[in-house]
Amino acid sequence: MTHQPSPDAVVVGGGVIGLGIAWRAALAGMAVTVVDEAPGRGASWAAAGMLAPVTEVHYGERPLLSLNLAAAARWPAFAAEVEEASGLPVGYRPGGTLAVARDADDNAALEDLYQFQLRCGLEVERLRSRECRQLEPGLAPSIRGGILAAGDHQVDNRALVEALLVACQRAGVRMVRARVAELAVEAGRVTGVLLASGGPVPSRADGELLAGGGPVPSRADGETLAAGVVVLAAGCWSGGLRGLAAEALPPVRPVKGQLLYLRGRADQPLCSRNVRGLEVYVVPRTDGRVVVGATIEEQGFDTTVTAGAVADLLRAALELLPDVAELELAETVVGLRPGSPDNAPMLGPAGPDGLVVATGHYRNGILLTPVTADAIAELLVTGRVPEMIAPFAPGRFTGGVPTAPGRRVS
Amino acid sequence: MTHQPSPDAVVVGGGVIGLGIAWRAALAGMAVTVVDEAPGRGASWAAAGMLAPVTEVHYGERPLLSLNLAAAARWPAFAAEVEEASGLPVGYRPGGTLAVARDADDNAALEDLYQFQLRCGLEVERLRSRECRQLEPGLAPSIRGGILAAGDHQVDNRALVEALLVACQRAGVRMVRARVAELAVEAGRVTGVLLASGGPVPSRADGELLAGGGPVPSRADGETLAAGVVVLAAGCWSGGLRGLAAEALPPVRPVKGQLLYLRGRADQPLCSRNVRGLEVYVVPRTDGRVVVGATIEEQGFDTTVTAGAVADLLRAALELLPDVAELELAETVVGLRPGSPDNAPMLGPAGPDGLVVATGHYRNGILLTPVTADAIAELLVTGRVPEMIAPFAPGRFTGGVPTAPGRRVS
Repeated sequence: MTHQPSPDAVVVGGGVIGLGIAWRAALAGMAVTVVDEAPGRGASWAAAGMLAPVTEVHYGERPLLSLNLAAAARWPAFAAEVEEASGLPVGYRPGGTLAVARDADDNAALEDLYQFQLRCGLEVERLRSRECRQLEPGLAPSIRGGILAAGDHQVDNRALVEALLVACQRAGVRMVRARVAELAVEAGRVTGVLLASGGPVPSRADGELLAGGGPVPSRADGETLAAGVVVLAAGCWSGGLRGLAAEALPPVRPVKGQLLYLRGRADQPLCSRNVRGLEVYVVPRTDGRVVVGATIEEQGFDTTVTAGAVADLLRAALELLPDVAELELAETVVGLRPGSPDNAPMLGPAGPDGLVVATGHYRNGILLTPVTADAIAELLVTGRVPEMIAPFAPGRFTGGVPTAPGRRVS
Repeated sequence: MTHQPSPDAVVVGGGVIGLGIAWRAALAGMAVTVVDEAPGRGASWAAAGMLAPVTEVHYGERPLLSLNLAAAARWPAFAAEVEEASGLPVGYRPGGTLAVARDADDNAALEDLYQFQLRCGLEVERLRSRECRQLEPGLAPSIRGGILAAGDHQVDNRALVEALLVACQRAGVRMVRARVAELAVEAGRVTGVLLASGGPVPSRADGELLAGGGPVPSRADGETLAAGVVVLAAGCWSGGLRGLAAEALPPVRPVKGQLLYLRGRADQPLCSRNVRGLEVYVVPRTDGRVVVGATIEEQGFDTTVTAGAVADLLRAALELLPDVAELELAETVVGLRPGSPDNAPMLGPAGPDGLVVATGHYRNGILLTPVTADAIAELLVTGRVPEMIAPFAPGRFTGGVPTAPGRRVS
C-alpha cells in the first residue's frame, strides 16, 4: 500500500454519494481511492429510494427544489449508465407518487401543498377520493383525496449501492476498507488522510468520523494516504474528523430515520406506485418488497429501533393501505441522514485548499446522487465549481465569502 | 451410534416438555435419548414464560385450571431443582400479574372474570384505577381498573431451555440432533423411531414431523433408533409422524403466536410485574427485556412475522404502558403452539403399546413443564398413569375407552 503512487483524489465515505463521485471522477481519468469501513451500509442502505422532488417539496426551499428537479431529470440516464457500467440492475422504476389524505384536515393540507406545487410550476394532478382508489385499489375507503405526481419515480437504493461498487471497481477506483481518523494537513493545505489503526471502533457518539459500521479491518494500520484532493463524503460523520478545527468542517448532524422493509408476493402488489400520507411513505418494489418510512428524529448518533417508531410507521401505513397487515415485517432499519442547517447539501471546496465537501444531503441523498457525482467529479477534474452547485457552497453558514463558481480547488 | 445399546426411552422433541421429561426420567435411572434437530428452539423459545394460571383462567376449563394451579404450585421448587442441577439461572420471579382495563367495556369484562375467579376460589384482588397506578406508575392514566393476581409469577423461558439442556446432559441424557421421519412399528407395537436422512428439510406445511428448524445434521442418516418406549413430545408436529395411522396420533394442531422482545434499561424498568390487558400481555425481565405477546392465529404451519400482528401488539402494549414507545424493538418471534381440541394437554399412553404422548399444551407449555415432566417420568418408570394426568388421556377425543389410571404402558 505504501508503495502505491498517491491517488489524485481520496474520497472519504463509500455511500452512494462517495461512490458516485469516485466513479465519475475515475471515468474522467483520475486516480481515485474510496475509504470506508463498510461501503454503502450507512444511510444509503437504509433509504427507500423514492425519487420524489415534487411530493417532497417544502416551503422556502426553492433553490433546493431546482437542484432536486435537475437531479430527477438526470436519473433515467444515470440509472442506465450505472447499469451499463456495472452489468447490474438498479431497479429504476417510473410510476409516480400518489399523496393521499386520510381525513378533511389532511385534505386541507394537501390542497395547500397542491397550490404551492402549482406556483412552483410542478406537474401535479389533484384527485378525488374515487380517482385515488381507481389508481390504487388497495387504498383505504376512507381516503379523502390526493395529489398525483406522475413524474416521481424510484430506484432500489440497495441495488444502486451494489451496482455503484461494481462500476467503481471496473473504472479502476481503489477501495480501502478502513476508517479515516484524521485529515492530514500541511501548511494549511489538506494533503491526505490518516487511517485509523486497528482495534475496537470508538463510539460514534464522540463525534469522530466513522463511515459505516463493522469491525476495523487489519489493513487500516495508522498509515497516511496522501492525495491531491480529499473529498469529504462521509454523510453525518463528515463533521467530526480530526486534523482541522470543527468550524472548518461542514456543519452536518445525524438525523435519525427508522424504516421498515416489508415483504409480500410479487404477483399481488400492495400498490403500483409510491403512496404517501402526511406521516408516512410506502414504496413498492417489483419483487414484492415494500419500504415504509420514515421517522425524522434528532437523537444524535443513536441507531436503536424503537417500539414507538415501528408502531407509528405501521399504523400510518395501515391507515392508507390496510393490506399492509398481511405483509411480512422483514426488516427494521435505522439510517442517520446527514442533516444540514438549511436542509440543502454542502457541495464544493471548503476550508483549506485540497478539501472538497459533498454531504448534508439530508433526505435527498439517493435523488441527488447523479448531480452530485457529476458536479463534484467536474470540480475535481477542472478545478472549477459548476454553476449547478454554486448555491450550495459549504462555506455559506460561516459568514465567509461564498465560494464563487470558477474558484479553483487545488 | 449403531453400537450403542437401545435406550429405555426415546423422547421425540427437545422443547421444555421433552427436555423436562427426559431429565426427570434420567434422574430416575432410565437411559433416555432426546431427538430434535434444534432443541428448545420451537414454541419454548418463542414463549413469554408467564406462569399465570389465575389470570389465564377461561370459562369451562376447570380440570385444566386444577392442573395449572398444581403446576404453578410446583414451580418454585422445580425452578430451584433445575438451577441446582444445571448451575444456571432460569429467571424465576414472583411478583404477580396485574390485569387492567382500558375502558368501561374492558372493566366490565374484567369484573366478569373477577367473579369467575372468585367462584373458582382463586386469590385475586379487585383494584381501582388509582390503585393500579400505585402498583405500576407506568400505566396509562386512562386505565379504569384492574385485577391483581399476586400469586402469578414468571420464568425466563429461554434461560429455562438452556438450563434444561445442561441438566439433561449432566443426568446422562443423550441428545441426537436429527429429525424423526417415522415411528418404527412392529406387530402393533412402537419399537423406536426412524431418523430422517440428510438433505433439505421438507416444508412443514406437509404435516410431517419437524421438531425445530435449521438444517438437517449429517448424523441423521436414515437409521433406526430402537427404544423400549417412545415419548411423543414434539409439540404441534406430534400429529404428523409417519408409521402410524393419523387417528392413532394426537390431534394436535399449530396455533401461531407472534411475540415481540423489547429491550430497555435494567435500572429503569417499564413495570415490576406482568401487566396484561384483554388483548396483550407484557412480561418484564429483570435485565430490562420486556416480552409482549401474543397473537392467536390459525394459520397452519406458517411462521411469518406480519406487519398487522406487530402493529396490533405494539398498539395494545402502548395503550397500557405508554413508555413502551421508548424501548428497543429487539426481536420479533413466532411460535407454533401445540393446540388441542379442548385446549388441554394430551398426556399418557396413546394408541399402540410403546407409545406415550405429551403434547397439546397450547398456551401453557412453560407453566405445565414441571407437572408434565414429573408425571410422564413417573409413568415411564412405573408403567402407571399418575392420578394428576388421568383426565388428560390422549385417547379422550377418539371415542375409545379413556385410559384408566394404573394402565401399564409397556
